[in-house]
Amino acid sequence: MEPGPDVTVLAGGVGGARFLQGLAAVLPPERITVVGNVGDDFEILGLHVSPDLDTVLYTLAGVVNEESGWGRRPETAHALEVVGELGGETWFFLGDRDLGLHLVRTERLRRGETLSAITDDVRRRLGLRVRLLPASDDPVRTVVTTDRGEMDFQTYFVRYRHEPEVRAVRFEGADGARPAPGVLGALAEADLVVVAPSNPFLSIDPILAVPGVTEALSRRGGPIAAVTPVVAGRAVKGPADRLLRTFAGEASPAAVARHYASFLTHMLVDRADAASVDELEAVGVRAAAANTIMRDRSARAAVARATLDLALSEER
Amino acid sequence: MEPGPDVTVLAGGVGGARFLQGLAAVLPPERITVVGNVGDDFEILGLHVSPDLDTVLYTLAGVVNEESGWGRRPETAHALEVVGELGGETWFFLGDRDLGLHLVRTERLRRGETLSAITDDVRRRLGLRVRLLPASDDPVRTVVTTDRGEMDFQTYFVRYRHEPEVRAVRFEGADGARPAPGVLGALAEADLVVVAPSNPFLSIDPILAVPGVTEALSRRGGPIAAVTPVVAGRAVKGPADRLLRTFAGEASPAAVARHYASFLTHMLVDRADAASVDELEAVGVRAAAANTIMRDRSARAAVARATLDLALSEER
Repeated sequence: MEPGPDVTVLAGGVGGARFLQGLAAVLPPERITVVGNVGDDFEILGLHVSPDLDTVLYTLAGVVNEESGWGRRPETAHALEVVGELGGETWFFLGDRDLGLHLVRTERLRRGETLSAITDDVRRRLGLRVRLLPASDDPVRTVVTTDRGEMDFQTYFVRYRHEPEVRAVRFEGADGARPAPGVLGALAEADLVVVAPSNPFLSIDPILAVPGVTEALSRRGGPIAAVTPVVAGRAVKGPADRLLRTFAGEASPAAVARHYASFLTHMLVDRADAASVDELEAVGVRAAAANTIMRDRSARAAVARATLDLALSEER
Repeated sequence: MEPGPDVTVLAGGVGGARFLQGLAAVLPPERITVVGNVGDDFEILGLHVSPDLDTVLYTLAGVVNEESGWGRRPETAHALEVVGELGGETWFFLGDRDLGLHLVRTERLRRGETLSAITDDVRRRLGLRVRLLPASDDPVRTVVTTDRGEMDFQTYFVRYRHEPEVRAVRFEGADGARPAPGVLGALAEADLVVVAPSNPFLSIDPILAVPGVTEALSRRGGPIAAVTPVVAGRAVKGPADRLLRTFAGEASPAAVARHYASFLTHMLVDRADAASVDELEAVGVRAAAANTIMRDRSARAAVARATLDLALSEER
């Protein structure tokens, strides 16, 4: 294997995937392990869909729809058009090529294979050298309580376009879930663990809720760095800013750091929030500021490089 | 409802569907009830597929691929391409638009709806006034014993392109199956029952094997007409000629008539087999000869008209 630090990344969907694309450009990909969120997995049209794992897969494989950040491009939706004509549910977009993956995954799950075994096979067939582990092979389902009632994650996020006000988040099944094979080892043994710029409450917490994961992070000797999901009080994508204000009082890097306080050692903030570097350093989190907006491949690689420089400089 | 005779048709796939398209052109479609074969239904990629029902639906809806006789046109296969890339089964062609129907049907079956209720909803949504009843809501599965061993119907027919020699045919589950709601009534009350030009052993027998169906036909007072599936010793499509030689000694209209002897009253043969008219009349089956090759819509209508003229002339 090529030399380089071993890095394990906790990642949700679009932000996590883009950070990973950058990381895979600056490190030997086989040195990278992703622990992916499965809290937003769900069943629709009888298919098991793992939106965050797929966003990571498609982004790393270079087939993602860059405009939306998820799904594939090129893509068609002929199956879904017919589903709609026949009265089936169409609020969750499923492209035809994307369906191919859901069909294969669902059938293999029904045959008794684990999500982690299937995911590993799929990423290999897509030609990916980055290792992708679902946080758990057991069902962990993010459920949100909102001003419109309690609902599963995709109903909140996609069907209602994350418009409802979130009052509480819970992870159904998490208490009895076990980390997927390799997860605890990847967290313990990596030279660096990175918490990707994903929604702390909706993308990272479902990973941390799997028994053993937070403990493994807290017990680590080595660095654990977060990349900020908020810039100047705004989420780059999605409702992270609103949830931070609701649950942490403010949508700031410091609030994210407090959320990860039990294990966080380093944090990369955006240049727009350079003032928070001192605030973070004052509470014992080593921090640096950089441009964290990951528009294209070179910007993504720069964010990854800045994260490695921040968190591994002492060891290098 | 528009005036006209009520006609119930036992139908398999392509030949049955083409005959039905002709019949719907010469009769008010709401006067037509189809009892469709479900013996070739099967599960692939976790989806319940009903190939014969779908061929009837697509043909009557005018979206069938006329060249192959089954599937849709226009159609794409992007999902199946990805299934193949990911190591899934691709020997059974599933187009993207076609998948839309399989997804809706499979999900509704899993929710506990009956195949007949789903089929009726689908045909209405496709704008069809012809009523389509699966022979049974219970699983009836055609299994063939061949020189390459025993296999399910689609493995024999599609995967091995009906190349193996068929030695026996059985219908798994038929003994305990009940006719779908409406089937026995449609057979008893129709002014005419037509056995479409479908494979007697592989498409019609699985319908006849459902307890009560053959009895309902035998008890009928009114006419039951078959349209020949063989012309000059050859099947128009598929292996009907080979199976007739194996199981009935010859691939002739007379052999088909003998197969249906317990209920058949009329038979339309091809002009190429005009000599068999006398042979059939001699055993008490009223027969006539016409062009039975159903290349286009007008030829299909002509076959339907010839069938009605033959079987209903006395009553008209």
